[in-house]
Amino acid sequence: MVTGKMPEGSFRRFLAERGEEVETALRRCVGGLAEVVPAAVRAAVEDGVLGGGKRLRPILLVTACEELGGEVCEAAYDLSASVELIHAYSLLHDDLPCMDDAPLRRGRPTAHITHGVRAATVAGAAMIPWAAAWAFESALRMGRAREQARAITLHLLEAAGAGGMIGGQAVDLLAEDRSPGGAASPLDEAALERLHGMKTGALLAASLEIGGMAAGAGDAALAAMGRFGRSLGLAFQVMDDVLDATGSEEVLGKRPSDSEHGKSTYVQLMSVDGARNRARALVAGATAALDAAALAAPRLRELARFVIERRR
Amino acid sequence: MVTGKMPEGSFRRFLAERGEEVETALRRCVGGLAEVVPAAVRAAVEDGVLGGGKRLRPILLVTACEELGGEVCEAAYDLSASVELIHAYSLLHDDLPCMDDAPLRRGRPTAHITHGVRAATVAGAAMIPWAAAWAFESALRMGRAREQARAITLHLLEAAGAGGMIGGQAVDLLAEDRSPGGAASPLDEAALERLHGMKTGALLAASLEIGGMAAGAGDAALAAMGRFGRSLGLAFQVMDDVLDATGSEEVLGKRPSDSEHGKSTYVQLMSVDGARNRARALVAGATAALDAAALAAPRLRELARFVIERRR
Repeated sequence: MVTGKMPEGSFRRFLAERGEEVETALRRCVGGLAEVVPAAVRAAVEDGVLGGGKRLRPILLVTACEELGGEVCEAAYDLSASVELIHAYSLLHDDLPCMDDAPLRRGRPTAHITHGVRAATVAGAAMIPWAAAWAFESALRMGRAREQARAITLHLLEAAGAGGMIGGQAVDLLAEDRSPGGAASPLDEAALERLHGMKTGALLAASLEIGGMAAGAGDAALAAMGRFGRSLGLAFQVMDDVLDATGSEEVLGKRPSDSEHGKSTYVQLMSVDGARNRARALVAGATAALDAAALAAPRLRELARFVIERRR
Repeated sequence: MVTGKMPEGSFRRFLAERGEEVETALRRCVGGLAEVVPAAVRAAVEDGVLGGGKRLRPILLVTACEELGGEVCEAAYDLSASVELIHAYSLLHDDLPCMDDAPLRRGRPTAHITHGVRAATVAGAAMIPWAAAWAFESALRMGRAREQARAITLHLLEAAGAGGMIGGQAVDLLAEDRSPGGAASPLDEAALERLHGMKTGALLAASLEIGGMAAGAGDAALAAMGRFGRSLGLAFQVMDDVLDATGSEEVLGKRPSDSEHGKSTYVQLMSVDGARNRARALVAGATAALDAAALAAPRLRELARFVIERRR
C-alpha cells in the first residue's frame, strides 16, 4: 500500500491555489459563451457558474492529469472548467421552481430568482453543448490529437447524459414524484446508491478519467481513476446527507432541505453515525483502487480525505 | 442549371414513406432512452418526440445522404432521429410555462400539461446528450470510422449549441424579453435573419451536412449542403411567419401565437406578399447552391419547393 499524507497547511494552500486557477478558467469559459448569447442569459450563466463552490470536479481533473504524468497548464484548467459547467448546469436546473424550488444557493439568491425562470432555463440548456465545445477546444490546446479531443468530449457528454448525471436527475424526480399522479416512495440502499452513482458518481468519475485521458494515461490507470471516482462520488453524497442532517443553513449556505422535500437519504437509512462510517469505508475503497494500480497519487488521496472531513 | 421535377404524387409518396421510416427510427431512439430514465420522463420524451411533425430535418438528412452517394439503411434513419431529437428538445422547452407557455402543439396538449413541468424540463435536458450518444452509435453502424462518427456527433452538438439553435432560443428570449427589467424592442431584418439563422438554420444545415458526412461526401459537396440548408432554413422560417399570419388554429394545429407574444416576424417587416416573395428568393438561392456544385439532387430540390408550398 502506498501512503504519503501532505502537511495540513500545505494541502489547504494547494486547494486554494487550484481553486483560484479554476475560477479564472471558468471566467474564460463563460466569457466565450457570452460572445454568442444575450445579456440576460449570460448573467444567469455567470450566477450559476461563478457563484462559488468547492470546485471539487475540476480540481480532481487537473490533479488526476498531473499525477498521471500530464502537464497542468492553462488549457488543462480550461478543460476542467467544462466539467464544472456541466455540474453547474445541473444545480441551476435543480433549483428551478418546477424542480427543488430553491431560493438560495451558497448563501445567495438562485439564478432564476435574480434573472427570471426563462433566462435560467435557457442558460442551463445552453451550458451542455457549450461545455462540449469548450472541452474539445481545450483538449486540442493541451496537444491532444483531434481524435483524442473528441473522445474526451464524448466521454464528458456520456457522463452528463441519460445514463449519468441527467438520468440521475430524472430518477431523483421520480423518487420524490411530485408530478401529476405520482406517489413518493422511499428508496432502499441499492436504489439510493444507483441514483447517486448516476447523479454524482458518473461526472465525478469522468472528471478523473478525463484528467487521465488528457495526460495520455494507459487503460489500467484510467480504470483506476474510474473506480476511485465512483467510490469517491458516493462518499461525497453520503457526507452531503450527513451535513444536511447535522449542519445549519449558516454553515451550508443553503437550506438543509433534502429530507423536507421527502428525498431518501443515507441518514434516514443508517443514522448519522452509520452514514459517516459508510463514507469512510467508501473512501478506503477509493484509495484501494489507487493501490491496486500502484499509483502513489498523494494529492488524490488527500482530496479523498477532504471529502469526508469537509464541513460543507 | 440542373432540373428534374418529380411527379406530384410520386413526391407525396416519397415524403410519406420517408416519414414513416423516421417515425420508426424515432421510436427506436426513444426506446433506448427509456431503458435509463423513469416512466414520467420517458412519457414526456415520447410526447415531445412521437407527437407528429413534418420530420423535415431527418428527411433532409437521409435524402442528402442518398443523393451524395450514401446508403439509406436503418442506421441512416437512426442517425436522422438524433437530429429530430435535438429539434424536439427545443420545442419541448419552448412550450414550457416559463417560455412561450403553450398549451397546444400539433393539436395536442403539450408535454408539460400532460406530464408536469418538472418531467418536461428534465426530459428536454436529457434529450441533448442522448441525441449525441445516439448519433455516434448510428454513425458507427453506418460503417463510419470512430473518428468520423465523433466528427458527426460534435457537428450535431455545435449546431444545437450556443452558437446555433440554443443560442437562437436565447436571443429569441431577449427579443421578447419578459424577464425582470426587460423591455421588448422589435428586430430589424438583419437581426431577425441572424436569430433564425441560429434558431432554425444551424440545425437544418447540419442535418444536410451530416447526411453528406455519413455518405462520405467531399468538402465541396458538404459546403453546398451547408449553403442549401441555411437558405432553406430561413425560407422555412419566413413561411412559418406567413402561415402564422394567414392560417387558422385548425390547419396549424397550434395557436398562431408569435405576433401575440410580441415576437418580430417577417410579415410585420415586409407584409404577407413581401414575405412570400422573400421565401421564394431564398429557395431559389438554395437550389443555386446545388447548381454551383453540379449536384442534381432532385429530391432535395423537391424538398426545397415543399418548404414554400406547404400549408402548415
